[in-house]
Amino acid sequence: MITKKQILTAHQIISPYVHKTSIFTSRSFNNLAAADVYFKCENFQKVGAFKARGAMHALLQLKVEKPNVTHVATHSSGNHAQALAWGAAQLGLHATIVMPNNAPTIKKNAVLGYGAKIIECKPTLQAREETLRKVVESEGAFFIHPYNDENIIAGAATSALEILQEIPEIENIITPVGGGGLLSGTALAAHYFGKNVTVFAGEPKMADDAFKSFYAKKLFPSVNPNTIADGLKTSLGEINFEIILKHVQGIFTVTETEIKTAMVWVLEHMKIVIEPSSAVAVAALLKKKKQFKNKKVAVILSGGNVEFSGIKF
Amino acid sequence: MITKKQILTAHQIISPYVHKTSIFTSRSFNNLAAADVYFKCENFQKVGAFKARGAMHALLQLKVEKPNVTHVATHSSGNHAQALAWGAAQLGLHATIVMPNNAPTIKKNAVLGYGAKIIECKPTLQAREETLRKVVESEGAFFIHPYNDENIIAGAATSALEILQEIPEIENIITPVGGGGLLSGTALAAHYFGKNVTVFAGEPKMADDAFKSFYAKKLFPSVNPNTIADGLKTSLGEINFEIILKHVQGIFTVTETEIKTAMVWVLEHMKIVIEPSSAVAVAALLKKKKQFKNKKVAVILSGGNVEFSGIKF
Repeated sequence: MITKKQILTAHQIISPYVHKTSIFTSRSFNNLAAADVYFKCENFQKVGAFKARGAMHALLQLKVEKPNVTHVATHSSGNHAQALAWGAAQLGLHATIVMPNNAPTIKKNAVLGYGAKIIECKPTLQAREETLRKVVESEGAFFIHPYNDENIIAGAATSALEILQEIPEIENIITPVGGGGLLSGTALAAHYFGKNVTVFAGEPKMADDAFKSFYAKKLFPSVNPNTIADGLKTSLGEINFEIILKHVQGIFTVTETEIKTAMVWVLEHMKIVIEPSSAVAVAALLKKKKQFKNKKVAVILSGGNVEFSGIKF
Repeated sequence: MITKKQILTAHQIISPYVHKTSIFTSRSFNNLAAADVYFKCENFQKVGAFKARGAMHALLQLKVEKPNVTHVATHSSGNHAQALAWGAAQLGLHATIVMPNNAPTIKKNAVLGYGAKIIECKPTLQAREETLRKVVESEGAFFIHPYNDENIIAGAATSALEILQEIPEIENIITPVGGGGLLSGTALAAHYFGKNVTVFAGEPKMADDAFKSFYAKKLFPSVNPNTIADGLKTSLGEINFEIILKHVQGIFTVTETEIKTAMVWVLEHMKIVIEPSSAVAVAALLKKKKQFKNKKVAVILSGGNVEFSGIKF
């Protein structure tokens, strides 16, 4: 059970390394949504995503609990890979990231840029887990899971903690949900630090394992997820699911078109870059605007890692 | 001659209507440029561009000087059109915007969205000026020029004023240059409020009338400008040119590739949306990085109006 104190400690110890991200508002968006909306900009976070919070917290706790460990590892083709590579570099640890051999060059380069080692494997979950197991066994690396981990969750919770410290009158918080690290952390922060704050999530209809699991109260894995919100293809973790069942009020699914429309709206009107996974939470709010009418709603923009090199002028 | 007091008054009277925009910094950009760089985010300004400052100032002065005028007009297909339409709506004035008949629908819709009237004309400067003259004569509308106007310049100067108030140790300021409203205003603000602050501009090589005029000390019009920085195709104004000759230290030209590279860098690394015209100033700094090495440099990101509806996911 993650305690209130664990989240406060996480916030305190990661703060020299991560940004206290800005909260943006937009009069046009408030008109569109008929609500008072506060965007927590984790797209401006270190490595461009909230993942820096959890990764740094897990690494700092590791340094205390297992001071002899000098090598960490994970499997990820996304923001957790970059976050762990970045965090390890900050703390003088070695990091090995297992990535599928079809991961985009830009993502590989980001990980290499932070000085981590990449081991490629076939693009299946089985190959990733198997390859990671070998790294852990043969090299004594410590595995840090992207979301199914108490330290990762307590770190992710610090984003909502900052929202509630800055705007205590918030009534609802909406996040995207993939593996559930951000959603479970946010739900715990709302439970411990909010006054009747309810927490909701947006999820792509094309990767709706959290939606199905939540309403069936039984954990289903993600089956052939196929969405532009590439950060949300992962299956919900067990620790995450338990917290979500207890402290989350609803999960809404959105279509690919709704995700794209929300993303383009934010780019064009708010002039900030968010990745499709962030747009999922925005799209969920717009889809359920009746439910949030005239409420003070915080939306966590989870990340902003988008490739623009192919943009047409 | 625009005085120090005019700029301070402009700042005071427009402040209830426009944003005091944020100043962003980026450790990655500082590493790239080997300088301390401060980005003044006019992309977050009302209507998505610094133009809101000048337009609002010109309109507020008009209300005082000619209280009987209820109708303003301009010709523009860009950010000045939106700024004047927006400002007029704020102050309860009618606005007519002469736009070329090939202007993008998104830009027409933005102007219509602020309640202004559009009159279309052929896409030539002659047709635009002729059509505007008719509106002024037949409807008694008051013409507000996009940049060759003291009130517009004093309004544009308030962005640099805010930079110098917030970071008095700034040594250089770089802006893009098109018609010269932002550059001349910035140069005056640096002259009046800075301590030995030098001002530079970036200009597209494909629309280099300011560069040519500045070094020849003779005003040349823009000939067949063809650049993705669509806000910078206009010819330098006479009032602007006189100020620029006196108070600007240098103009650098950049290629289309350099503009695109700078724009994509800012989108991908800083997670903010800037339009190609803003990227011109960023590209100029990177091109002349030896000159700005270890300096405290402010870059004015003039606007962020980019259409993303065709973005590929």
